[in-house]
Amino acid sequence: MIPNAAFKPGLEGVVAAETRLSSVDGQAGELIIGGFPVEELAANATFEETVYLLWNGDLPDARQLQSFRQALAAQRRVPPATLEVLRAAAVERVAPMDALRMAADTLSLAAPEDEALTLVAAFPTIVAAYWRLFNGQTPPEPRADLGHAANYLYLLSGSEPSAAQARGLETYLNTVVDHGLNASTFTARVIISTQSDMISAIVGALGALKGPLHGGAPGPALDMVFEIGDLSNAEPYLRRKLDAGERLMGFGHRIYKVRDPRAEVLSAAAERLYRAGGDMALYELARAVEQKAVALLAEYKPGRNLQTNVEFYTALLLHGLGLPVELFTPTFAVSRVAGWTAHCYEQIEANRIIRPQSVYTGVKGRRWTPLEQR
Amino acid sequence: MIPNAAFKPGLEGVVAAETRLSSVDGQAGELIIGGFPVEELAANATFEETVYLLWNGDLPDARQLQSFRQALAAQRRVPPATLEVLRAAAVERVAPMDALRMAADTLSLAAPEDEALTLVAAFPTIVAAYWRLFNGQTPPEPRADLGHAANYLYLLSGSEPSAAQARGLETYLNTVVDHGLNASTFTARVIISTQSDMISAIVGALGALKGPLHGGAPGPALDMVFEIGDLSNAEPYLRRKLDAGERLMGFGHRIYKVRDPRAEVLSAAAERLYRAGGDMALYELARAVEQKAVALLAEYKPGRNLQTNVEFYTALLLHGLGLPVELFTPTFAVSRVAGWTAHCYEQIEANRIIRPQSVYTGVKGRRWTPLEQR
Repeated sequence: MIPNAAFKPGLEGVVAAETRLSSVDGQAGELIIGGFPVEELAANATFEETVYLLWNGDLPDARQLQSFRQALAAQRRVPPATLEVLRAAAVERVAPMDALRMAADTLSLAAPEDEALTLVAAFPTIVAAYWRLFNGQTPPEPRADLGHAANYLYLLSGSEPSAAQARGLETYLNTVVDHGLNASTFTARVIISTQSDMISAIVGALGALKGPLHGGAPGPALDMVFEIGDLSNAEPYLRRKLDAGERLMGFGHRIYKVRDPRAEVLSAAAERLYRAGGDMALYELARAVEQKAVALLAEYKPGRNLQTNVEFYTALLLHGLGLPVELFTPTFAVSRVAGWTAHCYEQIEANRIIRPQSVYTGVKGRRWTPLEQR
Repeated sequence: MIPNAAFKPGLEGVVAAETRLSSVDGQAGELIIGGFPVEELAANATFEETVYLLWNGDLPDARQLQSFRQALAAQRRVPPATLEVLRAAAVERVAPMDALRMAADTLSLAAPEDEALTLVAAFPTIVAAYWRLFNGQTPPEPRADLGHAANYLYLLSGSEPSAAQARGLETYLNTVVDHGLNASTFTARVIISTQSDMISAIVGALGALKGPLHGGAPGPALDMVFEIGDLSNAEPYLRRKLDAGERLMGFGHRIYKVRDPRAEVLSAAAERLYRAGGDMALYELARAVEQKAVALLAEYKPGRNLQTNVEFYTALLLHGLGLPVELFTPTFAVSRVAGWTAHCYEQIEANRIIRPQSVYTGVKGRRWTPLEQR
């Protein structure tokens, strides 16, 4: 008990963990993942290499990578009870994040030997199976001959993706795999700090990620581009919004005070993807809308320095991969589960139970009044 | 970014919430719940009154209590898919806390109107149904004519409990319903702070509670009493343990430096229960072992002031109610879910996303090496 300790709303500015996994410098606009600047890692690595890097501290050599890919691919199938939960969820039309959370939770039924491996391997299977069941389609069997990203796209669409599509998704998954101590990552660390298991920790993290203040409200950035439709509409549309005092979705970030480095990586990935697809119209419109929006934000909100955030190009890239907006947050989870599990390993390595304090602001010394006297 | 902020391992001493729900004063050995000293509330209130107090700030009058009891009782049945998960869990012999967590998670399938009410109402149904399925028995239907505590005992045993048994459980549920910002309560607040839903928050809290550093390792206190068996064995047994440097389970607490006030309440409740049952032998043995243990701890560890904690009499009381040790932690959850949901309401009322920071301790500036050069 430290009776005079001051309440820290939101624990803002309090350091709750040391980590070697990622570093976020919001002033410099710099994100480091596993020692690499995000722009160095994201477009080069397969997702398997990124996961290996986070779990082991170094990139794998060729033999290590092969055996890691095989180990992950071997855990892609989920227990029958997990598919049953997804079927029941599809009947009830629950949101994909709730379905993912419930289904991930049932992975405990199989008592997996390596929970982190099973979680990372199973997430694409769960998300894709749910989406197909939700739409009245049969989920295909996972394919062990495809990489993690390509297999996810295959499970969603039922057909093998192009190399450009697999690379586009791979870049996205690498880019958002870890980002300091956000609310979901922190949740995972709090749970595992009681010496609980990894599935419990990750299910808790999923519950936090689905909150609209965290990962649970993507999409509006792209809606805006669709509503604008043609570049000639951009300025009047954006001015109307700003005059009405509305927020422009996809711009501004609690931490980044310059351009979110992930926006740059994802913008380049989207450009490559749309170019490979042969239709650059949407990409070019989005790019032009972005430039116009940043310029107008500087005019309407001088000094705030509102820059493009990760949502804007995430939406463009995932849309280009054929993903519906309902799957944006679950696909975020398909990536971030690797970061969460890596944080769990790190917390276990030098554990201390995470248990802050509360201050009591209520009354004291009440005496019991029997029901008939109330 | 506050680059020079110091890392607070375990967030010890950091205040992360203001609360009117409970106050823990470890120096004075004082626990206040909803304004009442725990000893004033626990033995007088029904569990429904305690839940109402936490959610509304005041005890209900007769009409409010009647309508609250009915509302809770009406939510005792769980969706068929929840029972399916419990059946699958029983086949796999998973631990009761994992079964409770998975089953609680599937309450999202029914999209309950009032998530807090549904969670509190459904926990006894889930825990009891799982235990019966685990033992090859059919779960009975919940009974709306019984109080919360009596119905739980009925669902477990299949027969209506005595008034003394219902009162014993009621006192236990009241005693452990809330206890400041422990790790599971904090988990619930972190998750709900993203504007996520209450089921997600409570499932995360269950994941934290099952950790052995939190609520996940009860029972050994009672094992010790059984091993001693007869008071004449107590001193040699305890001295052997202490000479070997072993810990005595059921004594000492991170926060309480005097006798845990909950131990007092539960000791009195256990005495009443065993007296009503007509066999005081185990109670009297436990009481004598306790006194001997406290005296020997003062001799072996002078100045540490190791006192009886809540585990010791929890074990004695729950054992007297016929609960197996495997259900001690799930029964703790049957109570604490009321505290968790109350903390969620409180967090929502004055919300700020809980997002502390991490400090980066890894390398920087790595450059990409192609696979064939590693």
